[in-house]
Amino acid sequence: MESTVKDIIIEKAKSSKIEQVDFNNLPFGSVFTDHMMVCDYKDGAWQTPKIIPYQPLTLEPSARVFHYGQAVFEGMKAYKDDDGKVWLFRPDENFHRINKSSARMAMPEFPEDYFFDGLNTLLKMENDWIKPGLGNSLYIRPFAIATQAGIIASPSQEFKFLIICSPAQAYYGGEVRVKIAEKFSRAADGGFGFAKAAGNYAGQFYPTNLAKEEGFQQIVWTDAKSHEFIEEAGTMNIFVRMGDKLLTCPTGDRILDGVTRKSVIALAEEQGIEVDIRPIRVSELLEGHKNGELKEMFGSGTAAVINPILGFGYKGERYELPVMTDSYATRIKQQLINIQYNIAEDKFGWRYEVK
Amino acid sequence: MESTVKDIIIEKAKSSKIEQVDFNNLPFGSVFTDHMMVCDYKDGAWQTPKIIPYQPLTLEPSARVFHYGQAVFEGMKAYKDDDGKVWLFRPDENFHRINKSSARMAMPEFPEDYFFDGLNTLLKMENDWIKPGLGNSLYIRPFAIATQAGIIASPSQEFKFLIICSPAQAYYGGEVRVKIAEKFSRAADGGFGFAKAAGNYAGQFYPTNLAKEEGFQQIVWTDAKSHEFIEEAGTMNIFVRMGDKLLTCPTGDRILDGVTRKSVIALAEEQGIEVDIRPIRVSELLEGHKNGELKEMFGSGTAAVINPILGFGYKGERYELPVMTDSYATRIKQQLINIQYNIAEDKFGWRYEVK
Ligand SMILES: Cc1ncc(COP(=O)(O)O)c(C=O)c1O
Ligand SMILES: Cc1ncc(COP(=O)(O)O)c(C=O)c1O
Repeated sequence: MESTVKDIIIEKAKSSKIEQVDFNNLPFGSVFTDHMMVCDYKDGAWQTPKIIPYQPLTLEPSARVFHYGQAVFEGMKAYKDDDGKVWLFRPDENFHRINKSSARMAMPEFPEDYFFDGLNTLLKMENDWIKPGLGNSLYIRPFAIATQAGIIASPSQEFKFLIICSPAQAYYGGEVRVKIAEKFSRAADGGFGFAKAAGNYAGQFYPTNLAKEEGFQQIVWTDAKSHEFIEEAGTMNIFVRMGDKLLTCPTGDRILDGVTRKSVIALAEEQGIEVDIRPIRVSELLEGHKNGELKEMFGSGTAAVINPILGFGYKGERYELPVMTDSYATRIKQQLINIQYNIAEDKFGWRYEVK
Repeated sequence: MESTVKDIIIEKAKSSKIEQVDFNNLPFGSVFTDHMMVCDYKDGAWQTPKIIPYQPLTLEPSARVFHYGQAVFEGMKAYKDDDGKVWLFRPDENFHRINKSSARMAMPEFPEDYFFDGLNTLLKMENDWIKPGLGNSLYIRPFAIATQAGIIASPSQEFKFLIICSPAQAYYGGEVRVKIAEKFSRAADGGFGFAKAAGNYAGQFYPTNLAKEEGFQQIVWTDAKSHEFIEEAGTMNIFVRMGDKLLTCPTGDRILDGVTRKSVIALAEEQGIEVDIRPIRVSELLEGHKNGELKEMFGSGTAAVINPILGFGYKGERYELPVMTDSYATRIKQQLINIQYNIAEDKFGWRYEVK
């Protein structure tokens, strides 16, 4: 994963937009840096990656991505420490995951050296966009789209792989109360819920809008078969603390294998918290709420790291969670952040230095 | 549904590409006419539709459609009769369906007058692209995509609605043998399988590639819960003839409510064929194949109208269907085509004249 940068074609932006950006007031995901990486797939091969000025894409109206949703993406962050060094958190996980998503969407895998060379080169060029200070980061969005012209429902033979970057402040997920899905579903057994594919997201918008009307911020999806087991939220895996035990459901066909999730599990286990990875019944939450065993629920994901859940709704009833002083959520979030910003020791070898 | 055309902004192409097109050798969905309709949604409203020269789209790399698959589409055809009149087949069905799809994908509904005015105006401009003669048609692809910039997984506030057109010859679906899905699935209960949304298509490509390696052309999806009931194929609803009875499964959450399907049902019933709309077990196909009751299977959809299925594969076994002389498939297909091309009487009021 050393950067070699031999092949990448670089076209620098004539001037930087950075002076126009208010880094103390950044809405998430809407300001982009000066450059982006683009790599085209055609004639059965990925062409030489390019780093070019950030700019619109020009595509045929019949490009497959518009009609058939053949597209995958990733989300990761770069952090700057007080010495000005730039770090990624487990980027190999994102690299392998986008290729796993691509395989399921009949898209070609992206070469490892292109990914890491492109990323390193781009991030070094955008170094000024990565601000030091806890909470500040550069959100990185690798994605690939089917670009071949032609409205026939079959796999594209042409693709674009891109990396775009957006400076971010600490993501305050806000007060999150979730609705537990009773009727709508996110993914089918034997489907592609495990993939970070475009087609998994827009379908959540309408049910989430309905939940918002009822005063919830997000939906916790349940299995489509019985709606008896909780699965994950829009862009977060879900943890439940029962007594001193931490529960999270197994990933599989339907559930994204989150990088934050697996890091939370490792950190919790390391400090002697018992972690049970098994299906979690909605009825357990209700019982746990009643008998006081249900202490915490939180979501895990790259954007917010850990997002405490304050309460949930189910079958017309609302359930508030207790307010914890020394919560697992806060403790593990701090540990994660300390590793990400090169403040704490990196026992697991998760940090990756950009250079 | 009269065309008023008061508002549409028209910019004509400087010259036509039509001379360069070989109308006797048209690969499906890859040649497009000289113009397209575009209508933008912003500030909470659809703006004035425009008809402009067919051209690429320019979108921000962070446009929602690339990342979250917020996109819907339709497929319909225009037919020219021997008097040079141009006909659509039940376009109101496509209009209502795209709005039903949009609602499920948290997209704004498109106004009826914009749809029909746009379509009529565009089709009159492209009149030379619609060739008379059975089998020739103009395939019409209305679609809408989320264009707002910003990589946050929430509904776009900006959209583009487009209509593009591609001349087509009789679509010969080829010899179709289908694999009955045993492991992969297309849609979840409580999901959006009923919508003609981009996210329903790319997920089928990989399982279909695997089926192709085994010598099948398409997959017949089964319910994700049990894989015991057949549902639909990639872009076709499925009919089964048992004895003299025609079976097709009910539509619902998971299955597209096909225009061809409902027309086949109406035509069959009109001529006294008993049509049973009920869940169809895979085991019934196996039994019917054994005892000779299974006479036909066919798919129905706009592209191929009716596509006979020659055989199917299930759990490693292959089953061939009998070769019928006077099949329901051939008979009903002919009746449908005769209505579409203004050859037969239009008892049901399905034809819509473009003028
Ligand atoms: C559906 C879904 N679940 C969970 C997550 C969390 O994954 P990660 O921790 O890798 O960001 C994401 C992505 O952020 C997601 O899109
Ligand atoms: C999933 C699916 N099923 C069935 C059909 C058939 O529908 P229609 O007869 O309206 O073309 C289509 C579209 O063509 C489709 O995309």
